[in-house]
Amino acid sequence: MNSALPFARAPHDLLIEPIVRRALEEDLGRAGDVTSDLTIPEDARGKAKLIARNGGTIAGVVIAQCTFRLVDPELNFAVEVPDGSSVQSDSVLALIGGSSRSLLTGERVALNFLGHLSGIATATRTLVDACAGTKARVMCTRKTTPGLRLLEKYAVRCGGGFNHRFGLDDAVLIKDNHLLACGGIKQAVERVRAGVGHMTKIELEVDSLAQLEEALAFGVDTILLDNMTPENLRRAVALTNGRAKLEASGNITLSTVRAVAESGVDYISSGAVTHSAPSLDVALDF
Amino acid sequence: MNSALPFARAPHDLLIEPIVRRALEEDLGRAGDVTSDLTIPEDARGKAKLIARNGGTIAGVVIAQCTFRLVDPELNFAVEVPDGSSVQSDSVLALIGGSSRSLLTGERVALNFLGHLSGIATATRTLVDACAGTKARVMCTRKTTPGLRLLEKYAVRCGGGFNHRFGLDDAVLIKDNHLLACGGIKQAVERVRAGVGHMTKIELEVDSLAQLEEALAFGVDTILLDNMTPENLRRAVALTNGRAKLEASGNITLSTVRAVAESGVDYISSGAVTHSAPSLDVALDF
Amino acid sequence: MNSALPFARAPHDLLIEPIVRRALEEDLGRAGDVTSDLTIPEDARGKAKLIARNGGTIAGVVIAQCTFRLVDPELNFAVEVPDGSSVQSDSVLALIGGSSRSLLTGERVALNFLGHLSGIATATRTLVDACAGTKARVMCTRKTTPGLRLLEKYAVRCGGGFNHRFGLDDAVLIKDNHLLACGGIKQAVERVRAGVGHMTKIELEVDSLAQLEEALAFGVDTILLDNMTPENLRRAVALTNGRAKLEASGNITLSTVRAVAESGVDYISSGAVTHSAPSLDVALDF
Amino acid sequence: MNSALPFARAPHDLLIEPIVRRALEEDLGRAGDVTSDLTIPEDARGKAKLIARNGGTIAGVVIAQCTFRLVDPELNFAVEVPDGSSVQSDSVLALIGGSSRSLLTGERVALNFLGHLSGIATATRTLVDACAGTKARVMCTRKTTPGLRLLEKYAVRCGGGFNHRFGLDDAVLIKDNHLLACGGIKQAVERVRAGVGHMTKIELEVDSLAQLEEALAFGVDTILLDNMTPENLRRAVALTNGRAKLEASGNITLSTVRAVAESGVDYISSGAVTHSAPSLDVALDF
Amino acid sequence: MNSALPFARAPHDLLIEPIVRRALEEDLGRAGDVTSDLTIPEDARGKAKLIARNGGTIAGVVIAQCTFRLVDPELNFAVEVPDGSSVQSDSVLALIGGSSRSLLTGERVALNFLGHLSGIATATRTLVDACAGTKARVMCTRKTTPGLRLLEKYAVRCGGGFNHRFGLDDAVLIKDNHLLACGGIKQAVERVRAGVGHMTKIELEVDSLAQLEEALAFGVDTILLDNMTPENLRRAVALTNGRAKLEASGNITLSTVRAVAESGVDYISSGAVTHSAPSLDVALDF
Amino acid sequence: MNSALPFARAPHDLLIEPIVRRALEEDLGRAGDVTSDLTIPEDARGKAKLIARNGGTIAGVVIAQCTFRLVDPELNFAVEVPDGSSVQSDSVLALIGGSSRSLLTGERVALNFLGHLSGIATATRTLVDACAGTKARVMCTRKTTPGLRLLEKYAVRCGGGFNHRFGLDDAVLIKDNHLLACGGIKQAVERVRAGVGHMTKIELEVDSLAQLEEALAFGVDTILLDNMTPENLRRAVALTNGRAKLEASGNITLSTVRAVAESGVDYISSGAVTHSAPSLDVALDF
Repeated sequence: MNSALPFARAPHDLLIEPIVRRALEEDLGRAGDVTSDLTIPEDARGKAKLIARNGGTIAGVVIAQCTFRLVDPELNFAVEVPDGSSVQSDSVLALIGGSSRSLLTGERVALNFLGHLSGIATATRTLVDACAGTKARVMCTRKTTPGLRLLEKYAVRCGGGFNHRFGLDDAVLIKDNHLLACGGIKQAVERVRAGVGHMTKIELEVDSLAQLEEALAFGVDTILLDNMTPENLRRAVALTNGRAKLEASGNITLSTVRAVAESGVDYISSGAVTHSAPSLDVALDF
Repeated sequence: MNSALPFARAPHDLLIEPIVRRALEEDLGRAGDVTSDLTIPEDARGKAKLIARNGGTIAGVVIAQCTFRLVDPELNFAVEVPDGSSVQSDSVLALIGGSSRSLLTGERVALNFLGHLSGIATATRTLVDACAGTKARVMCTRKTTPGLRLLEKYAVRCGGGFNHRFGLDDAVLIKDNHLLACGGIKQAVERVRAGVGHMTKIELEVDSLAQLEEALAFGVDTILLDNMTPENLRRAVALTNGRAKLEASGNITLSTVRAVAESGVDYISSGAVTHSAPSLDVALDF
Repeated sequence: MNSALPFARAPHDLLIEPIVRRALEEDLGRAGDVTSDLTIPEDARGKAKLIARNGGTIAGVVIAQCTFRLVDPELNFAVEVPDGSSVQSDSVLALIGGSSRSLLTGERVALNFLGHLSGIATATRTLVDACAGTKARVMCTRKTTPGLRLLEKYAVRCGGGFNHRFGLDDAVLIKDNHLLACGGIKQAVERVRAGVGHMTKIELEVDSLAQLEEALAFGVDTILLDNMTPENLRRAVALTNGRAKLEASGNITLSTVRAVAESGVDYISSGAVTHSAPSLDVALDF
Repeated sequence: MNSALPFARAPHDLLIEPIVRRALEEDLGRAGDVTSDLTIPEDARGKAKLIARNGGTIAGVVIAQCTFRLVDPELNFAVEVPDGSSVQSDSVLALIGGSSRSLLTGERVALNFLGHLSGIATATRTLVDACAGTKARVMCTRKTTPGLRLLEKYAVRCGGGFNHRFGLDDAVLIKDNHLLACGGIKQAVERVRAGVGHMTKIELEVDSLAQLEEALAFGVDTILLDNMTPENLRRAVALTNGRAKLEASGNITLSTVRAVAESGVDYISSGAVTHSAPSLDVALDF
Repeated sequence: MNSALPFARAPHDLLIEPIVRRALEEDLGRAGDVTSDLTIPEDARGKAKLIARNGGTIAGVVIAQCTFRLVDPELNFAVEVPDGSSVQSDSVLALIGGSSRSLLTGERVALNFLGHLSGIATATRTLVDACAGTKARVMCTRKTTPGLRLLEKYAVRCGGGFNHRFGLDDAVLIKDNHLLACGGIKQAVERVRAGVGHMTKIELEVDSLAQLEEALAFGVDTILLDNMTPENLRRAVALTNGRAKLEASGNITLSTVRAVAESGVDYISSGAVTHSAPSLDVALDF
Repeated sequence: MNSALPFARAPHDLLIEPIVRRALEEDLGRAGDVTSDLTIPEDARGKAKLIARNGGTIAGVVIAQCTFRLVDPELNFAVEVPDGSSVQSDSVLALIGGSSRSLLTGERVALNFLGHLSGIATATRTLVDACAGTKARVMCTRKTTPGLRLLEKYAVRCGGGFNHRFGLDDAVLIKDNHLLACGGIKQAVERVRAGVGHMTKIELEVDSLAQLEEALAFGVDTILLDNMTPENLRRAVALTNGRAKLEASGNITLSTVRAVAESGVDYISSGAVTHSAPSLDVALDF
């Protein structure tokens, strides 16, 4: 059991099921699993193990479980390693038993989810571990795979990261184009304040210390420091002196993240953990 | 214009639109683009360029176009680089003009599609180029991102690769578990032949030369050689002597693919081009 | 034109259309508008006015417009009174021209939206006006009609109100049951802080001044004062002294809202504006 | 148990579930019930009561039941007061037990349905009771909340009322615009008769006694008397003398409905019972 | 132009489009029209004619038009023969011009609709013509192809027939099992009258003259005479003497329908026109 | 038990359920089964038999089972005759027990599926039996009822037939218009080969022996001989001499199919088995 797990709360089944159903429909097409239907007797029973061939941080066992449940509600699925755990290679993640046909029919979709999401969790965990001992939290972005955002955000949590906005609607993020259209930081923040409710946070992106200084006057919740060097980030932290939360973003890699974290920023956001994490190698062994 | 393009036929709009629509709904949530709605005047007009920050092979300009059309049918979208083209860094892929709000509202979803698919096309093209001069075709697998299979298959075509099965239903692929359940190659092939129509191809997976020899007796269309060394692949090609098409699969990487291709196999399939290709860095510049 | 309008930004068409489409499908059933199809010649043309029979604040002209567009893209729809405006009785809200059949087919659905949403806008505006001169903002709640939340939230904005959470997911609101399960305010706030991202606001509900005092120690963004008298609200404002935003809630009526607003709270939330506002009488005159 | 109940047949689950599912998706958004997920242990169990804080007529307990079943199929739901019953304030409508998280997650959606529908049932019951002893039946109209028509029609039945058309397609209602387009009552009725099947009823709206007299010649099933005074209604009843069913409509209120009913009309239709009934105050107590 | 056409009103596009869209998605699958995409240049233009190879009554030109519009909004579609017309073999029904690829991609789905619906219209028209000079109207039933009921009901109208119920909900039809459960005709009719609104017609099925006589006492709108000989139907007509409308049903064929019609019944319903009509041979000629 | 059954594999429930659900929604409309709801006590229990009134080959018992399960998961459904069996008239196909209301509510939709699909299976079986002793397999086409293709393809398998393409995407079929656009067989086949993956079969349609001779040079998998006489088919078989599989198509009827089969072709495809098979008479007896 992994202590991070309570915070890595899985999305509600009502949110997961439509996504899994679409993935199964995509794989079953119009004729279903022709090969298994023709070669596996309807009453054949089998057992299989979900195995992580490589080590990493696991996300998506609950999605795999949902996949096999939709394929065949009578399959038995026992979770061995809960989402959010970090495992060695060749770890057994779950045991599944029941109709052999159903196991084969659900295999690829379950593995596609599990490999993809565990890849994201593993990439996140690597960044999180690199920041150990600093106060910086690793955040994801909206640079997610279309249609899978809620699952990928969950995978980030499984990797010890935190979620930024889920969409364009649940928080305000004022960028350069918004400032240009409004005529400046003051006008933009005022217009936003005049329109949004009090349960919506406001973040403002700046790309220089001068702009940061101007921004601090308007009391936004967070300031996004775009593409600054660790040294400039340190200066920004000093300049801000607690008047706003600071988020660093832009080309965060494993080799740079520690220096960024040590600058004293509160948050570090990485698009790569969701858009470029390689899949973790997961297999179904019979 | 890119000569590979005719073969990289884009999926029909009827197939693309529901996927793009879901991605937009995912990003708009319940309140839409709060920031832009509050800071950008409704009648502001702007121009923007889709730019590939890194070099690579492009896939998804038509998806980006569809995205902006769904956001705002009055936006003007001019394709500068058609899907399937390979470009240098900082190439302009498309020019878009119209409502500034609409441009900002559609930006992230369009980029998420374009970066993801171009990443796949680029990874595919790298493998394809490494096989130049051999007869081996690079194939994708069913190891795709759930919900995006048809777009990812298209991205593979844009990268010069070819598509394997689109699902469990459009071709037969007999693997070890199917053989075990049936009692052998003979029985499995007979059962399949007795059940499928003549427009469905049959492929059989083997993992040894002995099994290959046995398989050749049954006249399947293709034999999948799983995880064999280049040397064994060469032997398999000699042994087969044209009696079936041969596909090599298993841990194909940029460093091994050339040796595999030179073994004389007809097809090389890679899961990594779809499940582990990093995103290509694409941006929208105003 | 109404100066409040920029802030009453309408939801994106992509969000509105599916709701309107369902409403039309609900009314058309399986056979469509039998009466009009049989009695109105296909080529008959007509003009009609959307009219507010009673005075009030208008919300939903854009939804009516979307309704008629979905019924017949060739109808002409000219907005006379934009959403967010307050009008006298018998004001013309829009002029519509085109196929008489289409006008009759879309009439009821358009009016059902417009009457319902204008009822909400009018109820909101009444509360907002009653608070004039205080700093209190009128907020809505999640007590909305199932399936119409995003439109009703828009209607509240049209009435000069502000939106609270759009769902269970876009902000945290800790209530008594959550506190009980956690063992207290401290534990609840800590658990939430450990799990949510920095773009999510946190509100805490208290029902006594003692509990308010305890809550102030933990730095939540807003404190919800549940069912307090205006006098207690005043004490709460004094006690808080700017350390958190304060929201008053519970049985807010037109006769009590002014006293609540004068207590100095920042926000006043009312479920009644969405769940109990009578429809505004709107008609389509030919 | 309420004797009206057999007639207040609830819609089939297949019709209810999609509506409830949409309402839950609307409330769960993309991240689900963040607050409860973070503060309530996954294995916490609780019991709760659905309580009517005010007296009224209940509709929607079956919808609340469906809501909690979709949130968590393992919740236990015991109906205490079936739909169609009239209750005193503080009556327990149902007992629910199981996962505390699930109870909190489903609470608001269940209450939104139950409060809204019971509001309609209560408003209907008030009108029905006011007509006691007359033969007049209280009917609803198509002035319903978009997307909820079938539930609101059910709520009307729970309140002792009857349903008019469910849509534009299941019966014919000829109004003034249809008459104008056709050239008169005779032509309109003939055209309709020539086109509809024999299982479709035909109603005709008139606004004067002269028009009523003309209409009686054509044998329609029902005549709608629009906005007539009780005195004119009485004359209409006498004039008709059983040759058609008569329906009174237009500004029916609690203060006028009795006089209308005593005129001897067969049916009285009210839009207000569905479009303007305030919500009944229902709560979930733990 | 065909004089029956006004009554053969086509369903609204909002009702047709989802059905056509599903049919196209079913045919396009995941990869679309592979053959045409690979062999037809994207800019090739062509013209084609929809032709009825056999004579018959046409239904579905509007559905074919919708099909081609969804495939490609830029195709030009000119109706030559409107739905509801009876044509000789080799009649041109419509001319279509535009992208050759689009024409080929939409061809099969358009023809499948048009052939199926025209088959129904033709079968209906044959029965209708056989009843010429009698007052009997030919009706369809609920024995329709799942998912296509509204289109098949339209095809029946195109053939000069009339529609019975569209579903279980828009009219009451009391059959033997309902009578058994209630304890008799009296009880069944009373229970139904106590529950349905006045816009819902009531029909009662009887299978003997004795049962007919009993039924006439309760004033239902229509009585369904199940499987009676023409002689018994004549007796039923005499016995009824105008007190109810009479519908004959059961094994209506082209050889029996005239005798049934001459019995004097008002309606004759046939399941075969929708469930067993052979397709009309329609082709697309380039 | 029927030996053909293993090959008549039923589609996966995930593919069947949405189709059945839509059919039920179509029949239930907005108010459900009004008649049964009002006349059948909620707790009435009954038993019913699905009976084939005429002899034939059965397809769709699993669809009927799915229908009743969706209507009421507590109904008991015992299959007496599995799909793919040929039965005498008055055979009991299944026994169903449980709520009388549920039985009546599901009856018509279940019968519509079962009658339609068994009609197709019976028509197919008749052709298959007529070819007994030849090597010719009977195939279906894409001339299916829109929205039901996967079920109709299953019915063909139940009748002993085989499936051709499921859509435009799962195999290539080059017809005259494709040849015209490309400039000839050589060009068309080359373009297709250059674009499709190796798991996609290629078929080419020819209409003369000369064209056949030309086609044989290009090694396509199958050649479709369109509308040839049995004599020409025999010549085509001799000419081909095993170099390709041959499929005969065009106006295949029960009177011509034997002669076609005896020509020695491999496959005979018939559109009529899906588009013009009369329904098999199936009933639900209580």
